Amino acid sequence: MNRFVAEFIGTLALVLFGCGAAVLGGDHVGQLGIALAFGFAIVAMAYGIGPVSGCHVNPAVSLAVFIAGRMSAKDMVVYWIAQFLGALVGAGILMALAKDGAASGLGHNGWGPGYGGEYGMHAALIFEIVMTALFVIVILGSTGPGSAPGFAGLGIGITLAVIHIVGIQVTGVSVNPARSFGPAVLVGGSALAQLWLFFVAPAVGAVIGALLYRFNVLKAPEAS
Amino acid sequence: MNRFVAEFIGTLALVLFGCGAAVLGGDHVGQLGIALAFGFAIVAMAYGIGPVSGCHVNPAVSLAVFIAGRMSAKDMVVYWIAQFLGALVGAGILMALAKDGAASGLGHNGWGPGYGGEYGMHAALIFEIVMTALFVIVILGSTGPGSAPGFAGLGIGITLAVIHIVGIQVTGVSVNPARSFGPAVLVGGSALAQLWLFFVAPAVGAVIGALLYRFNVLKAPEAS
Amino acid sequence: MNRFVAEFIGTLALVLFGCGAAVLGGDHVGQLGIALAFGFAIVAMAYGIGPVSGCHVNPAVSLAVFIAGRMSAKDMVVYWIAQFLGALVGAGILMALAKDGAASGLGHNGWGPGYGGEYGMHAALIFEIVMTALFVIVILGSTGPGSAPGFAGLGIGITLAVIHIVGIQVTGVSVNPARSFGPAVLVGGSALAQLWLFFVAPAVGAVIGALLYRFNVLKAPEAS
Amino acid sequence: MNRFVAEFIGTLALVLFGCGAAVLGGDHVGQLGIALAFGFAIVAMAYGIGPVSGCHVNPAVSLAVFIAGRMSAKDMVVYWIAQFLGALVGAGILMALAKDGAASGLGHNGWGPGYGGEYGMHAALIFEIVMTALFVIVILGSTGPGSAPGFAGLGIGITLAVIHIVGIQVTGVSVNPARSFGPAVLVGGSALAQLWLFFVAPAVGAVIGALLYRFNVLKAPEAS
Repeated sequence: MNRFVAEFIGTLALVLFGCGAAVLGGDHVGQLGIALAFGFAIVAMAYGIGPVSGCHVNPAVSLAVFIAGRMSAKDMVVYWIAQFLGALVGAGILMALAKDGAASGLGHNGWGPGYGGEYGMHAALIFEIVMTALFVIVILGSTGPGSAPGFAGLGIGITLAVIHIVGIQVTGVSVNPARSFGPAVLVGGSALAQLWLFFVAPAVGAVIGALLYRFNVLKAPEAS
Repeated sequence: MNRFVAEFIGTLALVLFGCGAAVLGGDHVGQLGIALAFGFAIVAMAYGIGPVSGCHVNPAVSLAVFIAGRMSAKDMVVYWIAQFLGALVGAGILMALAKDGAASGLGHNGWGPGYGGEYGMHAALIFEIVMTALFVIVILGSTGPGSAPGFAGLGIGITLAVIHIVGIQVTGVSVNPARSFGPAVLVGGSALAQLWLFFVAPAVGAVIGALLYRFNVLKAPEAS
Repeated sequence: MNRFVAEFIGTLALVLFGCGAAVLGGDHVGQLGIALAFGFAIVAMAYGIGPVSGCHVNPAVSLAVFIAGRMSAKDMVVYWIAQFLGALVGAGILMALAKDGAASGLGHNGWGPGYGGEYGMHAALIFEIVMTALFVIVILGSTGPGSAPGFAGLGIGITLAVIHIVGIQVTGVSVNPARSFGPAVLVGGSALAQLWLFFVAPAVGAVIGALLYRFNVLKAPEAS
Repeated sequence: MNRFVAEFIGTLALVLFGCGAAVLGGDHVGQLGIALAFGFAIVAMAYGIGPVSGCHVNPAVSLAVFIAGRMSAKDMVVYWIAQFLGALVGAGILMALAKDGAASGLGHNGWGPGYGGEYGMHAALIFEIVMTALFVIVILGSTGPGSAPGFAGLGIGITLAVIHIVGIQVTGVSVNPARSFGPAVLVGGSALAQLWLFFVAPAVGAVIGALLYRFNVLKAPEAS
């Protein structure tokens, strides 16, 4: 129950901070500000609720942790529910705060004509798969054997920030099905129609990243 | 006495750095620069005066620490006095530095016509309550059982930065009655008339966040 | 094999994140965003794959570590191969993502007419030598005797970020032959013709920095 | 000798990175980028050469450390020489890199008509004294009893960054006589004529900050 609440709050905060920077800050903070907001949200929650739940706040991350053999299937499902609910409530709070015009976007993910840099679905797929794989590699490496105690939250947050610096123009950056889910459900339209990619691609990327640890392709030396 | 001086200096620095970025830096550093300034002020003071007083520099934070059962009521009141005095002196130094036109603002908090993004009082209330609650959750979590030693200052500062990235357009961001008090007293006018919200909302948010720990809704597992 | 994969992935990510910020983010994130992306890439990988390989992701760094007597020549060569391959694949992924116009640049390094601030070869040489020497000094100091455990990744990443803040106008900043190699091979033209400088200058700088440690000109006191 | 070289390199890097961001990066990185460059330079050097010399790279800091009773007068003078020499060489390298027009500024400190926000000498004095005092408080607190091991470099660097965010418009920010000395000597003119303030004010601020520790006005509780 403690962990459920922690993941709920953490994912709520991720959406509220990250998408909130886009919707409420917008051009006043720029894409660099939005990118930092997503990364800072992870840092905030990693040190805030990390002691309780480990701060996954991302169903793809929980999937990777499960595949790497560090979490039970049952716990994973509990985390998933908390994460999707948290993202939905976070997007809801943001909707209550935003003005009508701004609320129509809610920082949703997407691609194609009228979205960001108007990249194609092909680029969106590659981007989300590769970036989620790299994200998961950092997460599993920085929390696994031989890692520096305490630094994971900082390293993971900074990783999410740089992924956003690179990719806001491409897909708005998901690498997190829950983060895409919350705004898409409330916004509907093309955000909802394109939601499938932000479930499939992060899942594929998470599996790739996790298998590298599962099969010891990435493994810290024993005596460090 | 040591702690009183520490909280006084810390809150003075928070106002001088954060509001100073708005008043003296302004468009030259942008809203991202101002947001980072508030967060960096916390990081600076957390490592600078944290060893002495714990670096609350915020009456809402001291309230939350008290409610969570980690501080006496008497100490809380001493901290409050130091914080309000520090914020006032910090705003005073800023006024001495600023040019006449810039000094009329002093980075005060507010809402409505003529302020930032011209959000309504309703949005201001929700924003300040929710953000203070999340802020307090990070503070109590990152300094409580199971937390990573030393990282709290960094995590809390980054949290305040991201809250500012999201909300400078909404209320200028308070989540801290002392930070609102200092500039409002010196500026007067609508800043002073709207000051009540920046006492009430952060207090409500702090109570919500603190109760989650008080009643063990958020609690790190025993053996970590 | 573990370390080979780690260095391959790490250098791939450095190019994908750093050059990706330039190619896909571009003016939307600005030169500050690009500079942070390079630094954040190092932070990400230092905590992500650092436990496996130490996260050199830079042939000049491996050269310096070898000269400082902390790595065998054989290992250095293995690291080099992984780094050049990783940079090439990273640039290839970026090419697949980028639109035709943007891909022609791929964030390559260079100097002279038509490049950045149009600095001369003389300035490019000085810049890359001095900056690589300072970069290597930070790397060897922050991972050597008396250093603070865990902080090296953060310190090194921040160093790379500040070098980029200073020098994107000068050479686009290499201090890393592999990072220059990947984009140059795919872009060809002047990027390829100027590639030699980004092998020579970082190598010279790395040797200078490493010799300061090799001959104990820089040395932490014994009892710390 | 080790420490002399370390302080020389560290101060060289501070000027090269910080002033270099202003001279070579300029409008491409903005005042936020320049502010971060100064802060990042400290972080870089704190972890890079900190293990050797403690990374003062600032005569005002060495003065404060001496007054606080943590350094001998003889060592302080050795540090001073290394710092002024390093700053001079750093400014010299920058001059060699910069184009003619840009080199005339070299990121020097100043005030009054034609400089930054055209603040008066009165404001410059207050700013430099108060900011150096706060800077020194963070330095002595984060490296003293009860401080979190390893975090000082990060905390101090972030403090210097926020001071720059606030004050680049006011004086260009010194809080460091050596950092002002290097560019002023090479630039001459008003930079040299105004140099006295950037010796006097940081010294006064450093004394104020250090006395708070010397007389235990700021003191961490014994059992922490």
